[in-house]
Amino acid sequence: MAQKKPKWVVEKERNRRAAAAETVWLFGLHAVRDALMNPMRERLRLVVTKNAADRLGDTIRTCGVEPELSDPRKFAAPIDPQSVHQGAALEVKPLDWGSLSDICAPRGEAARVILLDRVTDPHNVGAILRSAEVFGARAVIAPHRHSAPETGALAKTASGALERQPYLRVKNLSTTMGALREMGYTLIGLDGTGAQTLEETTQEMTGSKAIALVLGAEGPGLREKTKETCDTLARIDPAGEFGSLNVSNAAAVSLYAIEKIQRTG
Amino acid sequence: MAQKKPKWVVEKERNRRAAAAETVWLFGLHAVRDALMNPMRERLRLVVTKNAADRLGDTIRTCGVEPELSDPRKFAAPIDPQSVHQGAALEVKPLDWGSLSDICAPRGEAARVILLDRVTDPHNVGAILRSAEVFGARAVIAPHRHSAPETGALAKTASGALERQPYLRVKNLSTTMGALREMGYTLIGLDGTGAQTLEETTQEMTGSKAIALVLGAEGPGLREKTKETCDTLARIDPAGEFGSLNVSNAAAVSLYAIEKIQRTG
Repeated sequence: MAQKKPKWVVEKERNRRAAAAETVWLFGLHAVRDALMNPMRERLRLVVTKNAADRLGDTIRTCGVEPELSDPRKFAAPIDPQSVHQGAALEVKPLDWGSLSDICAPRGEAARVILLDRVTDPHNVGAILRSAEVFGARAVIAPHRHSAPETGALAKTASGALERQPYLRVKNLSTTMGALREMGYTLIGLDGTGAQTLEETTQEMTGSKAIALVLGAEGPGLREKTKETCDTLARIDPAGEFGSLNVSNAAAVSLYAIEKIQRTG
Repeated sequence: MAQKKPKWVVEKERNRRAAAAETVWLFGLHAVRDALMNPMRERLRLVVTKNAADRLGDTIRTCGVEPELSDPRKFAAPIDPQSVHQGAALEVKPLDWGSLSDICAPRGEAARVILLDRVTDPHNVGAILRSAEVFGARAVIAPHRHSAPETGALAKTASGALERQPYLRVKNLSTTMGALREMGYTLIGLDGTGAQTLEETTQEMTGSKAIALVLGAEGPGLREKTKETCDTLARIDPAGEFGSLNVSNAAAVSLYAIEKIQRTG
């Protein structure tokens, strides 16, 4: 008699099947071109106007997807008519980046990852994906619930980075933080109540220390439970009496600061 | 006989009158509270629901503006009904920050300003105002035309910084760049074609050199004419082959980098 699969395996398989059934409509010339050029991207339908087909010319010819031509006045893709689609829409499966440890295990390098605690605004997540790519972070990690899903709007603000920068959705942020700690990461939460500034904190981590930055949403910031799960909290002080950075700006500055301090001490 | 005013004086006075006639509706509890607490802010009408009036309690009592109570189901302020106004809207005059030289003259300090070349997205300009405040920049400067106007949406994304961080609207960006150069600023344009990285460029400007950072819009970047008017162009390289920063992230990283390099060499 075959052994019964443990409950967690069954659940994992079910989640995987549900994720595979999900599709996303990307739109806009830039986002569609980047997705067509990405060999990892599973593509289902490409809807384009004649004009957009001309502009995507070579990309369409080499990608092997048969375009469906559509009238620009009655655009056939099921996307929000308010979307600035520029006559191009592509139905895709979300990217499968593989497991947390495949992507994030430091393997002796000064690895960096970004964790997002309920950051739901696609503008912010898109900008963070771009900064993560520019500063060579391994991944941007967010929980499945209460965070910006992989949508056409996110792809547009990510300006290509969604195709190249791992964006991992996890079930539980605290559990993932624990797994990263076991891999050797120090978990730094960005929070105004931190005892040290980000620079002071990072000074103690020169060399190849792996660092996970944890950022909360605009307004509420990090949740209490997330703060408690961090190894340390660090703040970025305003020059004057008031002020705070937008979450994507805080992520970019932190990635830059860590890179610079680890490189030069 | 009284001497006739020169044409430019007449025009300046006309612009000043036109600007004074303009009003802006700010909305949302945070933005309205910050504007009520700002003594520089000329306030015309305050429309609040009973609930918002309670939450703004002390701020309303001390600011000296008589609130108009409004039914939440038929909110009386003339703002987009889609706006997340939280029951609070305040009609104000745009802030008058004074002249370019009043605000920006370096007076021996390591002054910094940010110039925006056609950055129209209020999310980006709002985030840039916040970063400018956090990193102590003198001003964010943008032309009157083709840039994000001072609106309720901008105030909301600026999260209070619009009340405190000078946002100067000028007639002509090139003329303003010339005026800043005369004050002693070096004008660094952020552009992927720059011969040096931002760090290499800034290494040569340690101490108290005044720096004006010039940034272009997402996509088109700096216009040719703006590039030519800069003293130098600097780039921020991606760690890998691809990628570029969102404009507000680029501004934040640059302000941080300049501050750090000028401080520590």
